[in-house]
Amino acid sequence: MGVCRIIPLGGLGEVGKNMTVFEADDSIVIVDAGLAFPRDEHLGVDLILPDFSYLVERASMIRGVVLTHGHEDHVGGLPYLMREVHIPVVAATRLTLGLVKSKLDEHGLLREADLREVAPGDEPFHLGPFTIEFVRMAHSIPDAAAIVLDTPGGLVVHTGDYKLDHTPVDGQRTDVGRLASIGNRGVDLLLGDSTNAERAGFTESERVVGEAFRQIFPQRKGKILVASFASNVHRMQQAVDVGVDCGRKVAFVGRSMRKNSNIARNLGYMDVQDDMILRPNELAELPRNEQLILCTGSQGEPLSAMTRIAYNDHQAVSVEAGDTVIISAKPIPGNELRVHDAINRLAKSGAEVLHEDNAPVHVSGHGRAEELRTILGLLRPRAVMPVHGEFRMLAAHAQLAREGGIPEGRILLAENGSVVELSHEHGARIVDHVPAGMTFVDGLGVGDVKDVALRDRRRLAEDGVLIVVATLAAANGSGGLTAPPELIARGFGDAADELLAELREEAGRVLTQLLGDDITEIKLLQEHLHEALGGVVYDRTGRRPMILPVLVEV
Amino acid sequence: MGVCRIIPLGGLGEVGKNMTVFEADDSIVIVDAGLAFPRDEHLGVDLILPDFSYLVERASMIRGVVLTHGHEDHVGGLPYLMREVHIPVVAATRLTLGLVKSKLDEHGLLREADLREVAPGDEPFHLGPFTIEFVRMAHSIPDAAAIVLDTPGGLVVHTGDYKLDHTPVDGQRTDVGRLASIGNRGVDLLLGDSTNAERAGFTESERVVGEAFRQIFPQRKGKILVASFASNVHRMQQAVDVGVDCGRKVAFVGRSMRKNSNIARNLGYMDVQDDMILRPNELAELPRNEQLILCTGSQGEPLSAMTRIAYNDHQAVSVEAGDTVIISAKPIPGNELRVHDAINRLAKSGAEVLHEDNAPVHVSGHGRAEELRTILGLLRPRAVMPVHGEFRMLAAHAQLAREGGIPEGRILLAENGSVVELSHEHGARIVDHVPAGMTFVDGLGVGDVKDVALRDRRRLAEDGVLIVVATLAAANGSGGLTAPPELIARGFGDAADELLAELREEAGRVLTQLLGDDITEIKLLQEHLHEALGGVVYDRTGRRPMILPVLVEV
Repeated sequence: MGVCRIIPLGGLGEVGKNMTVFEADDSIVIVDAGLAFPRDEHLGVDLILPDFSYLVERASMIRGVVLTHGHEDHVGGLPYLMREVHIPVVAATRLTLGLVKSKLDEHGLLREADLREVAPGDEPFHLGPFTIEFVRMAHSIPDAAAIVLDTPGGLVVHTGDYKLDHTPVDGQRTDVGRLASIGNRGVDLLLGDSTNAERAGFTESERVVGEAFRQIFPQRKGKILVASFASNVHRMQQAVDVGVDCGRKVAFVGRSMRKNSNIARNLGYMDVQDDMILRPNELAELPRNEQLILCTGSQGEPLSAMTRIAYNDHQAVSVEAGDTVIISAKPIPGNELRVHDAINRLAKSGAEVLHEDNAPVHVSGHGRAEELRTILGLLRPRAVMPVHGEFRMLAAHAQLAREGGIPEGRILLAENGSVVELSHEHGARIVDHVPAGMTFVDGLGVGDVKDVALRDRRRLAEDGVLIVVATLAAANGSGGLTAPPELIARGFGDAADELLAELREEAGRVLTQLLGDDITEIKLLQEHLHEALGGVVYDRTGRRPMILPVLVEV
Repeated sequence: MGVCRIIPLGGLGEVGKNMTVFEADDSIVIVDAGLAFPRDEHLGVDLILPDFSYLVERASMIRGVVLTHGHEDHVGGLPYLMREVHIPVVAATRLTLGLVKSKLDEHGLLREADLREVAPGDEPFHLGPFTIEFVRMAHSIPDAAAIVLDTPGGLVVHTGDYKLDHTPVDGQRTDVGRLASIGNRGVDLLLGDSTNAERAGFTESERVVGEAFRQIFPQRKGKILVASFASNVHRMQQAVDVGVDCGRKVAFVGRSMRKNSNIARNLGYMDVQDDMILRPNELAELPRNEQLILCTGSQGEPLSAMTRIAYNDHQAVSVEAGDTVIISAKPIPGNELRVHDAINRLAKSGAEVLHEDNAPVHVSGHGRAEELRTILGLLRPRAVMPVHGEFRMLAAHAQLAREGGIPEGRILLAENGSVVELSHEHGARIVDHVPAGMTFVDGLGVGDVKDVALRDRRRLAEDGVLIVVATLAAANGSGGLTAPPELIARGFGDAADELLAELREEAGRVLTQLLGDDITEIKLLQEHLHEALGGVVYDRTGRRPMILPVLVEV
């Protein structure tokens, strides 16, 4: 009898780095290859990847990667995976592939894989023993899809991220008809998005945000800034449409905002006339009430456009009384204080700041409980494995499945590294566990993206750690260094005393200059310090120790 | 002509450490003396106080402190203030005074002040040139009051924290009738709570949470744990009432939960029969479905009851499949990840976890926009100064005042340290600025509360800083120390090398033991390390350096 092994390597027990391995008949197909963003305790880390070692050990079995949509937590790990193993085929929808291409190009990997464009509704295609079909799903990025895998062990549906949204901005609804007919065929295992499983009811349509923009924009006399995820093409399109109707021109500010808007426009996913677009440095030529600025930084990320604008540290954009800033996103847990800090700084500049607490300027891309129930009802799977979410979200999804009549033994609360065996004989069962940890990516601030350090605990000893500790006098304008920074170098090998002295001096110089410019935000100081010291070490030694700036306000 | 100077020393541009100075005719009355909890960047700090130096320099002018209610962010700084200056009178309502007495007793300060019980509706009393009246307000702690100060410069109303709540649990409504008659008399300046000014509509009644408990409790077959703020007496009362009706007995778990429930019961604010109460260590004698546990830790604080229970690190309480944990509070910004981590751990134990995202088990204690408008309408103040909140909340309150017809020049967007002058001649104006920073409290983990270190940047050099850096192998069970911890001592004076060696050894010992016990949560490790090293240093030197444990997962 045929058997399929399904191994989630990321995205279970966490939000981020989604990745699932499907293995049968000595062949592997991978659904998604995402990354995660570090938490505060991951000092000095820029990105987190799944541990690819399971795949590295089985590299010759890999037939391809299938991507559900273009968000970083689903595609951001792909270039790093492709450095470790050969990926013969990458299959995805048109916009997803467009975003991935640009990423692979940056990493110099564009010629490494056969990039295969798939449209929902296309004839199913084959990768090894798997027959694969895409089904259109609505989400907060266009061109998202569920993946249907006909495997030797049974029929599997992986929803990817989705919401139902019966009135999506592009008219491309979740294809409930197709899902129903797949359900009629008989689904053996459903891997379903759990992000909003704890929340009752339905997620509102993306269109609601456009309606809010229509209420807000016409009354505004100053600049309008909209900060959102650069991948939320429909959000940008809605802002642009309303802005242009109100006689404003548009500037895209922030690296990923510029990049993604270009890709989306080139591929036909975004419609803005050329003469409606300004470069950021051309903004000064327009009256304030004719400017619409779409920018990155909705998570208060240090050094992002919105953070720089809030701290008056941006070259081209500033805000003042009469301007309106719309934060069209929800803080990812852990980012709340950064976002609040940015809002407070913007409000102090005199801008009116609209955000999800005081205006309907954001909706989630993930379906809530009733939507998950709808999918369970359409597909009527024999077994369910909740994916994409912290444990509590997976548990809430499991509860929905239970209430939907799925027997307890067929609800799989798996974790990263669980090995699920699916067969016609035994159904779906967790049979084993393989290593599935985290790999850290560090050094994006320095040099070329091709040069970043990939590290795990085995490799850390080679690269070393450099800890910089500086104490600052507390805020209220009188801030300053209370003493020269101290350094702890570890596993740093032959690091000469002169280098440490140089680094200590450089750290002092950077901090003194920033504090002199009245930049006192800890996260900003840490980022600048990280970048400057990383540059010096790399110049002198060609190495990338992990750099941990510890700043203490006293 | 008479003049009153009003100086907020805390609570503006922040949430926490609320404190306002009223000064006239060489006399000072202080409304509230709160503390704030540190943010992650305040490594090694336990509590934050307002900078008392303005008061220390004018100690002889102080006539008394008037407290609006018993929350830590309004009364927690009082013992520390009383160490610095003599406070002749502390005036507050009965429960507030009960909570403060216990606090002063711990600090050995009980005989230092004349504690004066005031009830809303009492005849106004005098402190120096101020005539003072309390007006009942509803809030998330009983016995909250607004303070009406008849000053030489005009009539001032300070709302304290409030919501309107027309159906409070104790029947003690916000006294809108009295507020209206004060409004008719003519209010020159309103200092109003801004916490929820950004949110439209009304905050729901506290009674809603009791109704949710009535839905939830009867169906539960296992233990029920309710985590909330220990000061939320009505919340506890509602949980107890429903629990007892369902045949459960009650245990209060966590130091402040035990303390506050005792005070509230002794003063008649809480009604539980003695034979319905169990000690935590008696819980084991009862079947699970007869247990109700009220515990601290709703903010995921390291070493709090709920966090210990979640990490299976509590002596008397554990949870398992079939139990229900209700987190009856909202995470304070910055605590989200800790709370989420605790929820995930509890869910992994098999418990059902209910929290504000998935059940109506919490309501705010602060009124929203319509309630603030109602107060503005009742009082019709000549001038408004938003207090209690981050800048964006103050700005939102200012906008409500503007919409309510208060002229722009009479809306004072002040900050900590602003000097507001109120006179019949000129109304209210910001005329000056005095120093108003932060003072750190550190060392609560070590020894007696009387021994804690109060420090500001001037004193830091005396006590020194001890930074401990340890790198841990990443999670997934295989965690461990990758190398002995390193120490940086600074301003540590004559600290002998032996002491540093002992501390390094102690740090290694503590971490190895905890990791051996499978305790890998960074915040818990930091707390344990902080406590252990603080103890060693204090034993050897009698000093309390600031101790900063930096743990790096690699």
